[in-house]
Amino acid sequence: MHATSSRPAPVPEGVEHHVCDLLDSTASTRLLAKLRPTHLLHLAWFAVPGQFWTSIENVRWVEASLALARAFHEVGGQRFVGAGTCAEYDWSSGICDEKTTPLAPASLYGTSKHAVNTVLSAWAERSGVSVGWGRVFFLYGPHEHPDRLVASVIRSLLAGRDAECTLGTQVRDFQHVEDCAGAFAALLDSDVRGAVNLASGNGVTVAEIVQTIAAQLGSDRVRLGARPTNPDDPPRIVANIQRLRDEVGWTDRYDLASGLRATIDWWRQ
Amino acid sequence: MHATSSRPAPVPEGVEHHVCDLLDSTASTRLLAKLRPTHLLHLAWFAVPGQFWTSIENVRWVEASLALARAFHEVGGQRFVGAGTCAEYDWSSGICDEKTTPLAPASLYGTSKHAVNTVLSAWAERSGVSVGWGRVFFLYGPHEHPDRLVASVIRSLLAGRDAECTLGTQVRDFQHVEDCAGAFAALLDSDVRGAVNLASGNGVTVAEIVQTIAAQLGSDRVRLGARPTNPDDPPRIVANIQRLRDEVGWTDRYDLASGLRATIDWWRQ
Repeated sequence: MHATSSRPAPVPEGVEHHVCDLLDSTASTRLLAKLRPTHLLHLAWFAVPGQFWTSIENVRWVEASLALARAFHEVGGQRFVGAGTCAEYDWSSGICDEKTTPLAPASLYGTSKHAVNTVLSAWAERSGVSVGWGRVFFLYGPHEHPDRLVASVIRSLLAGRDAECTLGTQVRDFQHVEDCAGAFAALLDSDVRGAVNLASGNGVTVAEIVQTIAAQLGSDRVRLGARPTNPDDPPRIVANIQRLRDEVGWTDRYDLASGLRATIDWWRQ
Repeated sequence: MHATSSRPAPVPEGVEHHVCDLLDSTASTRLLAKLRPTHLLHLAWFAVPGQFWTSIENVRWVEASLALARAFHEVGGQRFVGAGTCAEYDWSSGICDEKTTPLAPASLYGTSKHAVNTVLSAWAERSGVSVGWGRVFFLYGPHEHPDRLVASVIRSLLAGRDAECTLGTQVRDFQHVEDCAGAFAALLDSDVRGAVNLASGNGVTVAEIVQTIAAQLGSDRVRLGARPTNPDDPPRIVANIQRLRDEVGWTDRYDLASGLRATIDWWRQ
């Protein structure tokens, strides 16, 4: 098993790491020609918090993702799984279902991811490569950027500071990052084609998450409503996970309480 | 004014030609850095008749088109127009309207063109480049591939052979290629953004086109129904051209009779 990223990274035993910038298609083509993988899980993208929604870097990643899939096919690759996003869906209905919810990305990020999805799905029929597309929802867990919701609330409360939040009435589908990783691995090992929501399937309010963290830490320093609510924030984004459960056969290891507890433990160390 | 293609090509006086393979992004980036154009009309794509609908070459042209737009932006480009297709639309309703007809390409070609359209439209808002997208319908005229409908019927009848056709009941929007070129030039000169149908706006049956050619040539050798009709062929594909007429301000020079007459004259020489 091989892993690649643009910078050196720790990998588990049995995995060989290769430094490779996937924006350099000459380098990625050379690496694929050397390794000749049968299965490829493509997670790389421009992902700087606060910037990735609108950055023009998204366009380069459309090109790099398509070039990677073509190079994989040219060396005999059989199964390709890419990372999509809940931002491909029209969010107005509240539920995201692969078969019935309209696809209407509102951001350059969602549009770019969705373009890779549509092109690779149509290309799969012609190239013979089996293509799966895992749509990621809202993640939390170890190694999260410290300014994102769960990480920032845990850090504030652990430090004895107030955690200033919005009212938190918006409902989201949160999944522990290790469950998302497990779902991706299960999708890669399967032959399920097209888009599959990788999510918990459970909607919880942001207020509920924040209050669960506070309860687990025995803290009363959460300040709901201290930050203004964004009126454009969709009230509800929750995945239908029937395909993930019935076709891929994946079940999450964590529920919200145990996932948050594990995340608090990680930040404590 | 500059023109580029992968092989040497004749150009009108006042136009400078550059041989450049747009699939080689290093070469295209170098050419753009040298010329620093303010306006760019991008028509290049994989277009071999009979193959382009399904060829995996379509994916390379998605990458090349996005790379070209990015390189154009990097040298200060202001107005970019790309070539889309009526195959981006859901053909089941018969009418193709930019604002109301669902976009549901059924081919890898249509999917790939549409992916470039959606990514560049979202990118335009972030890059500041003005992006127009001309959707081409059914073309005929000088230099057409000899096996395509209008060219093959003219050649057969001019040679005194039977022209074997389907029943020809399907309705299509045919436009003379010089009118399509004029519409592209007008779109490039305008600041109209997003998708614009470049078409005649008139639906005619294939039988009507073939019989018009026969009448102009005084021939009775058209054999409608000699070839089997494809049951999957959509009965009607016609453009709404309100945007082209009212926003771009373009009017075709040819109607069907004069366009076919000019095409017959070209094949005669």
